[in-house]
Amino acid sequence: MNEDKEIKKHCPCVSEVVTRRLSLYLRCLLMVNREGDEYISSKELAERFHLNADQIRKDLSYFGTFGKRGVGYNIRETIEKLKEVLGLTQTYNVAIAGAGNLGTALADYPRINQDSFGVVALFDRDNRKVGTRTKTGIPVYHVTELEEKVNELNIRMGIIATPPDAAQGIADMFVRAGVRGIMNFAPVRIRVPAYIKTISADFKSQLEVLAYYVSKIKTSD
Amino acid sequence: MNEDKEIKKHCPCVSEVVTRRLSLYLRCLLMVNREGDEYISSKELAERFHLNADQIRKDLSYFGTFGKRGVGYNIRETIEKLKEVLGLTQTYNVAIAGAGNLGTALADYPRINQDSFGVVALFDRDNRKVGTRTKTGIPVYHVTELEEKVNELNIRMGIIATPPDAAQGIADMFVRAGVRGIMNFAPVRIRVPAYIKTISADFKSQLEVLAYYVSKIKTSD
Repeated sequence: MNEDKEIKKHCPCVSEVVTRRLSLYLRCLLMVNREGDEYISSKELAERFHLNADQIRKDLSYFGTFGKRGVGYNIRETIEKLKEVLGLTQTYNVAIAGAGNLGTALADYPRINQDSFGVVALFDRDNRKVGTRTKTGIPVYHVTELEEKVNELNIRMGIIATPPDAAQGIADMFVRAGVRGIMNFAPVRIRVPAYIKTISADFKSQLEVLAYYVSKIKTSD
Repeated sequence: MNEDKEIKKHCPCVSEVVTRRLSLYLRCLLMVNREGDEYISSKELAERFHLNADQIRKDLSYFGTFGKRGVGYNIRETIEKLKEVLGLTQTYNVAIAGAGNLGTALADYPRINQDSFGVVALFDRDNRKVGTRTKTGIPVYHVTELEEKVNELNIRMGIIATPPDAAQGIADMFVRAGVRGIMNFAPVRIRVPAYIKTISADFKSQLEVLAYYVSKIKTSD
């Protein structure tokens, strides 16, 4: 898509599709690693996790990681390499704008608050929510404090979980405050400078994509 | 990706990227339509919603929709056409497996329960949850009832919001029951027959993709 071309001017990046595969390999290797083995072949990895062995070899070799013939990939080394490539040796403080059902569910979602990520603040314009905390203790601030708190709390990623009419204003605030990556759950496209990476995560759009296929799939049964 | 090639054998479909754009055009046109105008040009649509005018014309013409020179697209007709193409003139009953925080937040998310979609059932293996209802009244059934309820309630799409170890078993049940589209929030790749469309919606993967860019973006400020 266009955004990917634009962002490449600012970021020596592989495509989002490749990035998603690397993230998936990392997840699979982390599972394998818990079992205590030292090596795994691309074939075994592919079979266990429904991946493509040729693709795994190609993707990993692009980043300078090669398996040993007859043995495969060193699991721990490959995990470290993937974390390094994906930028996961750093930690990222995350802010969520919108303290409604979705925003608070995301804030308290255990898997988001693991490893390299931590939600440190929610923002809302509803004064009844400001000053409260989510179940896991994440504070809700007023949206007017967003830029200040982003700097104070070293927030590097923003999640937009507001109604659509508020999304662009929030995106502008995140950008002004220095956030470089935005995940947008609102059903609108936000306009940001070319050097900001956005991911659209609107559920309804995803359901519509599913509907397209479900309405057209023909099976013999 | 491979899945797209596989599914094409069973589905005369355009790619997921095109489908996502069509879904976005529909959303924009629905907003414009509320303002009462009859026509909109691709240029105006592009400017208002941060889209690409050439791409809009190309995408819509592929499905036989053309703008009138100097006037643009008939808004209502284009909406109807897009709904038809996306399969949104039908309705889809949706089931969610996993009645935890995420599953219940999704079940009660207003935008999912609009227009062509409605969540009609949640499934969980925790007997304390079975028999309860979400805030908006969606019933929680035991997971052993999944296949029966999918048929009884004419459920056509499944959402997996379970822990990773349960995801494949749920996917298998959905497939056996006749569900053709699955949205998977669990952080594992599920194995399904080639004629089933799956969408991976794991938040953590999306954050990892963002991390990749955020860690590499260089700006002049």
